[in-house]
Amino acid sequence: MTVRIGVIGVGMIGQDHIRRCTQVLNGCQIVAASDINVQSVQKVFDQYQITGKAYDNGHDVIASPEVDAILVTSSGPTHEEYVLAAIKAGKPVFCEKPLAVTAQGCERIVKAEMAAGKRLVQVGFMRSFDACYRKLKTTLSSGQLGEPLVVKCVHHNAEVGDSYTTDMGVTDSMVHEFDIIRWLLNDDYHSIQVVSPRRTKHAHHGVQDPQMVLLKTKKGVLITIDLFVNCQYGYDIRCDVVCEDGIAYMPSPLQVPVRTRGQLSEHVNADWRERFIVAYDIELQSFVDNAKQQRVEGPSAWDGFVASTTAAAGMVALTSGQITPVDIPDCPAFYRKA
Amino acid sequence: MTVRIGVIGVGMIGQDHIRRCTQVLNGCQIVAASDINVQSVQKVFDQYQITGKAYDNGHDVIASPEVDAILVTSSGPTHEEYVLAAIKAGKPVFCEKPLAVTAQGCERIVKAEMAAGKRLVQVGFMRSFDACYRKLKTTLSSGQLGEPLVVKCVHHNAEVGDSYTTDMGVTDSMVHEFDIIRWLLNDDYHSIQVVSPRRTKHAHHGVQDPQMVLLKTKKGVLITIDLFVNCQYGYDIRCDVVCEDGIAYMPSPLQVPVRTRGQLSEHVNADWRERFIVAYDIELQSFVDNAKQQRVEGPSAWDGFVASTTAAAGMVALTSGQITPVDIPDCPAFYRKA
Amino acid sequence: MTVRIGVIGVGMIGQDHIRRCTQVLNGCQIVAASDINVQSVQKVFDQYQITGKAYDNGHDVIASPEVDAILVTSSGPTHEEYVLAAIKAGKPVFCEKPLAVTAQGCERIVKAEMAAGKRLVQVGFMRSFDACYRKLKTTLSSGQLGEPLVVKCVHHNAEVGDSYTTDMGVTDSMVHEFDIIRWLLNDDYHSIQVVSPRRTKHAHHGVQDPQMVLLKTKKGVLITIDLFVNCQYGYDIRCDVVCEDGIAYMPSPLQVPVRTRGQLSEHVNADWRERFIVAYDIELQSFVDNAKQQRVEGPSAWDGFVASTTAAAGMVALTSGQITPVDIPDCPAFYRKA
Amino acid sequence: MTVRIGVIGVGMIGQDHIRRCTQVLNGCQIVAASDINVQSVQKVFDQYQITGKAYDNGHDVIASPEVDAILVTSSGPTHEEYVLAAIKAGKPVFCEKPLAVTAQGCERIVKAEMAAGKRLVQVGFMRSFDACYRKLKTTLSSGQLGEPLVVKCVHHNAEVGDSYTTDMGVTDSMVHEFDIIRWLLNDDYHSIQVVSPRRTKHAHHGVQDPQMVLLKTKKGVLITIDLFVNCQYGYDIRCDVVCEDGIAYMPSPLQVPVRTRGQLSEHVNADWRERFIVAYDIELQSFVDNAKQQRVEGPSAWDGFVASTTAAAGMVALTSGQITPVDIPDCPAFYRKA
Repeated sequence: MTVRIGVIGVGMIGQDHIRRCTQVLNGCQIVAASDINVQSVQKVFDQYQITGKAYDNGHDVIASPEVDAILVTSSGPTHEEYVLAAIKAGKPVFCEKPLAVTAQGCERIVKAEMAAGKRLVQVGFMRSFDACYRKLKTTLSSGQLGEPLVVKCVHHNAEVGDSYTTDMGVTDSMVHEFDIIRWLLNDDYHSIQVVSPRRTKHAHHGVQDPQMVLLKTKKGVLITIDLFVNCQYGYDIRCDVVCEDGIAYMPSPLQVPVRTRGQLSEHVNADWRERFIVAYDIELQSFVDNAKQQRVEGPSAWDGFVASTTAAAGMVALTSGQITPVDIPDCPAFYRKA
Repeated sequence: MTVRIGVIGVGMIGQDHIRRCTQVLNGCQIVAASDINVQSVQKVFDQYQITGKAYDNGHDVIASPEVDAILVTSSGPTHEEYVLAAIKAGKPVFCEKPLAVTAQGCERIVKAEMAAGKRLVQVGFMRSFDACYRKLKTTLSSGQLGEPLVVKCVHHNAEVGDSYTTDMGVTDSMVHEFDIIRWLLNDDYHSIQVVSPRRTKHAHHGVQDPQMVLLKTKKGVLITIDLFVNCQYGYDIRCDVVCEDGIAYMPSPLQVPVRTRGQLSEHVNADWRERFIVAYDIELQSFVDNAKQQRVEGPSAWDGFVASTTAAAGMVALTSGQITPVDIPDCPAFYRKA
Repeated sequence: MTVRIGVIGVGMIGQDHIRRCTQVLNGCQIVAASDINVQSVQKVFDQYQITGKAYDNGHDVIASPEVDAILVTSSGPTHEEYVLAAIKAGKPVFCEKPLAVTAQGCERIVKAEMAAGKRLVQVGFMRSFDACYRKLKTTLSSGQLGEPLVVKCVHHNAEVGDSYTTDMGVTDSMVHEFDIIRWLLNDDYHSIQVVSPRRTKHAHHGVQDPQMVLLKTKKGVLITIDLFVNCQYGYDIRCDVVCEDGIAYMPSPLQVPVRTRGQLSEHVNADWRERFIVAYDIELQSFVDNAKQQRVEGPSAWDGFVASTTAAAGMVALTSGQITPVDIPDCPAFYRKA
Repeated sequence: MTVRIGVIGVGMIGQDHIRRCTQVLNGCQIVAASDINVQSVQKVFDQYQITGKAYDNGHDVIASPEVDAILVTSSGPTHEEYVLAAIKAGKPVFCEKPLAVTAQGCERIVKAEMAAGKRLVQVGFMRSFDACYRKLKTTLSSGQLGEPLVVKCVHHNAEVGDSYTTDMGVTDSMVHEFDIIRWLLNDDYHSIQVVSPRRTKHAHHGVQDPQMVLLKTKKGVLITIDLFVNCQYGYDIRCDVVCEDGIAYMPSPLQVPVRTRGQLSEHVNADWRERFIVAYDIELQSFVDNAKQQRVEGPSAWDGFVASTTAAAGMVALTSGQITPVDIPDCPAFYRKA
């Protein structure tokens, strides 16, 4: 069986998913797409030799009887509306980040999905599909190291543009850690603190960089996130998990060690594309494989809601400098993972 | 366009490729398969919900007008016959190792393919599709390290069964290095020597293990292959390339480093399946992608012939203990890579 | 010239220094020693074939005209008195930790030494003589990585006895980091916070383990210390320094990597003796070499005072859970390093 | 007790040992030295504030009743004469490489020493005092990896001067491996082969570089030595030992890993001084410590003889390209190690 996919929004990320579904993934087919600019849909279809319906409106994509599953890759503020519509139509929907622009919007989606009675939404957090994180989780889940106590994350970017603000460190960058560490630990956050170290000279005017965030979970696990978005040397995502009986270190991506010119060295990833490119393929293949079986797994609307709520608390903590509570309701049974 | 594939032989490897084409790869479909035991074909079709033709004879698969491309996964001695038939039919054919059981058989395929006027055969050497080897080749091809002078290979298996003989070290195990090092260097072999170190107590009766092979290429590059098929500790494939301006080391597969019980440690692959599983997917996807465009790339019939010829010289060298010439004709323009 | 040394206190550490001066170091000789139990002095002298004076009182050692320099290795509460006496006698004195049992005691020593007009006191912080820390400092001092912004320390012990208390994490364990990070950064502390993560089941009753400490320096550098004294896996001291243009990682001590039984692994140090044994030799050789030239370098009385003051603030922070100021006076010119 | 040392030859290496004995080592004192140019002796004495006798002849140093032990650091061709004289005088003698310029000369020393009835000679092979080799040997000796089967050595120099010849690869460079691998394995050589890979463009005219040597021991262990004296990237000494139950890798010297400018990198040693500087201290301290107890340990005259004999066979093998026997007599009981 082939999953027939409709795409809402054919900007950069939408086009990339169309290419992925057409040329890389197994078991799916693009049959419809929409964009405010409807001509751009046909252009993409031509490029990938796709025979499909082009709409100027996402709701037409969702309504199309030929469409089995939806990808929402339109602009952020439109996500909530389309995801709610897909839920109403009873169709599996993959929604790029953010699920909604506010925690309240995420909550509305959560409620609608629960009312629908089954999971229909996968949020585009790709890290849990990355081989490095997966291997780390496998090690932790084996139980050989006992309970986790402290998690130390590194999130370093070579540099960011001048539109990047201090706030975005919390809402755009660290939100990935907010999501993935919950996935790694099966635990929820209880408090958050933001600490501002000495500023790098490489930060744009007024931007606090680096930042150090401390989270505590309900079980008491301490998470530190060392965020440094102008670290110059490359894109570097790391995660050490200190457990009762040992430490597990997330492996770094494959690189060729070289001895030359007085040094033993290896390349550091330049950016997130290079680092996570394969994870995107696996993420969407997973959506397709589940859709075939009429189910949705992976990062849920609830996960999107929790990440959003944590980021909101992080913003308060950033301003106050205080240890700030993160109020996350108990996870409904509906969303609880085995 | 979807490539319609026929499979000859549904033993273990045939079944695995059917699964791969059906559930993993993009752009292909199994439409026919044959086996001496024709019931087993239908059984596999049922397992993967495939609607296809089941034959008791590979030639029917090749002849079927519904079949665009062929996978030969029958027993070794039948390969030559089916590959020749596929060439005659003008259909792209992927043939698992060995291409033929003798160098002469390989040569007959080479001649037939050249007579057909275009490449139709891909041989199942999977290492050139492995990310570790590919990254190594990228580094070498960049030119930053200058010309290669010495290549040091390690080929270690945890253990082999009691049907494994000393000869198989050359013909079955090191044949992978014979192929991949040519690919890495774009060079051909000139001589081979086999040295027998002290035997491990873990080798079965009469088997020489480890073995060390020294190859020299026409350009003078020295290759050492440290083969040890009862090394106990795991499956370990390594490759260091010493060049005029530095050394490149093939990276090892991703593993989670762990500090526990007085040690910093990481897992070593248990066997070749664990080590090269992903390479098989990429290898066959590459065959499919090329078939879509009516072409064949990757390891060629010529490569199969050269590996077979080198192994034959290796057998002479194993017996004599002497530096033995490897007589490889110049590569025909037909097979020369850009 | 040979430096003639007198030792006050011949307990375990005193005996070890006597052995070191006699059998390992260059340019020194033990000529006198004291202990409450004077017989034990003669016993140690006999063991190492030393001809020296045995006293029952440290002041006699200090007063002896045959003694050029003093080692204070008696019980902690007696340190201040002997160090003050050595200063009065104008003799170089090496004092094991603690310099004094209170910050006030340290301050009295500082004042006495300044009044004496020249440095006479070296405190037994050995880490700055460790090859790993030294190489790290060399890298930082080269300037190639720009200014340090964040320092991440790990201080893990396999386990501690049941006399170990939560307070000792700050006063006995982390005091080493308090000292060495100032040495690394040439900076002083401004505030300290103590965070308590989830407790390990391996901690003795009532002990908080692990602990995470956050220090900020006057220049704004953030230091995190991940203390875990029942980590089970071994003794592990690490230090990553995040700078404006890159990160330097303190190297780990030499170990033999081994591939065996399905793993690539290496030994982790079992305890601090194994880890820092060589640093003690270099530390005391440095004291001797300087004493020959009538000078004292290395960790100073001021460093001892600052470490003690920082630990005192850490105790307040441990109780309150709040970000707590560390009030360190400006370093007097007398103690300032080039 | 202090060992009173006389030095024969105060060229670069002689001066360095005088500095070492005076400023670094424990338990020794320079009391005499000789040089053809006797003024240079006094100059060195002045530099290190030594009160000693200056001679123009090494035999006077040996004869001096004030001298307990001898260091021979004169020019190579004079070594044999002085070592024989020291043996005759019954004084422990440390002789820098070569012990004698021919295997026959070494043999004369061996005979003289055996006639003297006790070991008096230590040869200046310093690698067995290097921490990396020692740790490797400790791992092998633990027996956890079973019997060694294959040893793979790397001996790379950044570059050599234009007086370096192909022969010197065997007689000057690899002679270190000839000695250290015997020490590591407690085994003797049986045959040697020299293979010439493709030449680097960086070698001086007429010099074959790299070279690959294969040695087999009497027990059948295969040793490969990858010599490359113009490798450009630095000085790199490595040793992997493949055993029946696993592999041990000699650790590399401590370096600070750094992430900067798109790379994770660490320094490679520039030359042998940087790499083995500490080993020289330990080597000579060992000589002194043993001399105190009227004994000599470490690399023996027999070891010097074997290294010299192996190098001579290597020269034959280099010319012939054949597998060449290495005729080493059985080790006399006199020289056998426990």
